[in-house]
Amino acid sequence: MDKTNAKLFLIPNLIGNTPTTDVLPLIVHNVVSSIKHFIVEDIRNARRFLKKLDSEILIDSLVFYELNKHTTQEEISTYLDVCIAGEDIALISEAGLPCIADPGNQIVMMAHKMNIRVIPFSGPSSIFMALMSSGLNGQNFAFNGYLSVESQLRIRQLKVLENKSLREKQSQIFMDTPYRNNKLFNEILLNLNPDTYLCVASNISCENEFIMTKKIAEWKKLNINLDKKPCIFII
Amino acid sequence: MDKTNAKLFLIPNLIGNTPTTDVLPLIVHNVVSSIKHFIVEDIRNARRFLKKLDSEILIDSLVFYELNKHTTQEEISTYLDVCIAGEDIALISEAGLPCIADPGNQIVMMAHKMNIRVIPFSGPSSIFMALMSSGLNGQNFAFNGYLSVESQLRIRQLKVLENKSLREKQSQIFMDTPYRNNKLFNEILLNLNPDTYLCVASNISCENEFIMTKKIAEWKKLNINLDKKPCIFII
Repeated sequence: MDKTNAKLFLIPNLIGNTPTTDVLPLIVHNVVSSIKHFIVEDIRNARRFLKKLDSEILIDSLVFYELNKHTTQEEISTYLDVCIAGEDIALISEAGLPCIADPGNQIVMMAHKMNIRVIPFSGPSSIFMALMSSGLNGQNFAFNGYLSVESQLRIRQLKVLENKSLREKQSQIFMDTPYRNNKLFNEILLNLNPDTYLCVASNISCENEFIMTKKIAEWKKLNINLDKKPCIFII
Repeated sequence: MDKTNAKLFLIPNLIGNTPTTDVLPLIVHNVVSSIKHFIVEDIRNARRFLKKLDSEILIDSLVFYELNKHTTQEEISTYLDVCIAGEDIALISEAGLPCIADPGNQIVMMAHKMNIRVIPFSGPSSIFMALMSSGLNGQNFAFNGYLSVESQLRIRQLKVLENKSLREKQSQIFMDTPYRNNKLFNEILLNLNPDTYLCVASNISCENEFIMTKKIAEWKKLNINLDKKPCIFII
């Protein structure tokens, strides 16, 4: 396929209900105003976000392409067709950075296959903001996504990650669905070494942001409630 | 030690010579204007960056604390003393996000030990902007820092990373000093599987930004020069 000059922009989103200028560079506000095509997970959320970025944006003149569990591969395969016609398109994350702990990377891979230029913007990421604030090793780290929902397996995974962190000196980042956070936190305290450092980071970039790194033995003396709060754990 | 209300802010820096509003949220411009104490790698660069963020900033009224290979542990141990006196301090990265492929995490760990609140800001990161633009797996990934300078060992490391990427479905991110990029790139093409996807991302967030993902077999047909360009590789 011939190279087109049209571009795929990757637009980060807010993590919570924060002002856009707290987490996004001004350029994002300007760029969205010049784009007519948007690939989004949820159209209503995307509309609200675009209005927040540019209150004068004409939402009805925009074309939205839904990318979620209901989208078929056949539909996805047409999403970058507008680029062949020379028009730019943007992929907006549902929260944080696009394609990081977030779907969307198959759109980006398709762009590379079609020789469409991909242009990323900086923005908030609970993973990286937690890591930089943890005091733990940021020269070598791994993000492991969600652990297993099965308790025995999850505990085994935790021990593998603790071992990796210690042996390979590689910080291990993981998360869980918010309503299981307290359960996971207690499993960590019960099963990991008292000398292991644990960073707990919740509500990153939002009101009530909480980031703390302590040894497991110290965490045991504290009483925290992580229920339903978006949370990143690092050991 | 008693809890203080003073905070340690983590301030990202530009990656290259870009306008601050292209990569940093406005809040960073406001926050630096209210801080008097800055931990920085290079004072001259930090001064220039602060002037760019706030042209009216009174540089001579600021106190800088150098954190680089010449700084002793004894000096570092005093750097957060101002927080005990109730004053905020900021750690500014030399480029990109603080503490990520960048020193500074020992300052953050000291803050946690002293119960000083750590507040991160979002900003550009060549690692994460490369990952999100790669089309490769962003649900599970590892950053491995710099590979060995010794060629045979580096080739072994590349094969281990390729194997990990394939076996554990974990994207493997790595880099090298810019003047060795072409050498590393050629070693990748010579030693990895023709079907392995490689993302090459150079000059992220700057002029001449280049991000491309291709199979090794396809890269072999292209002719690119990465010499002296800051570059992230992902397989």
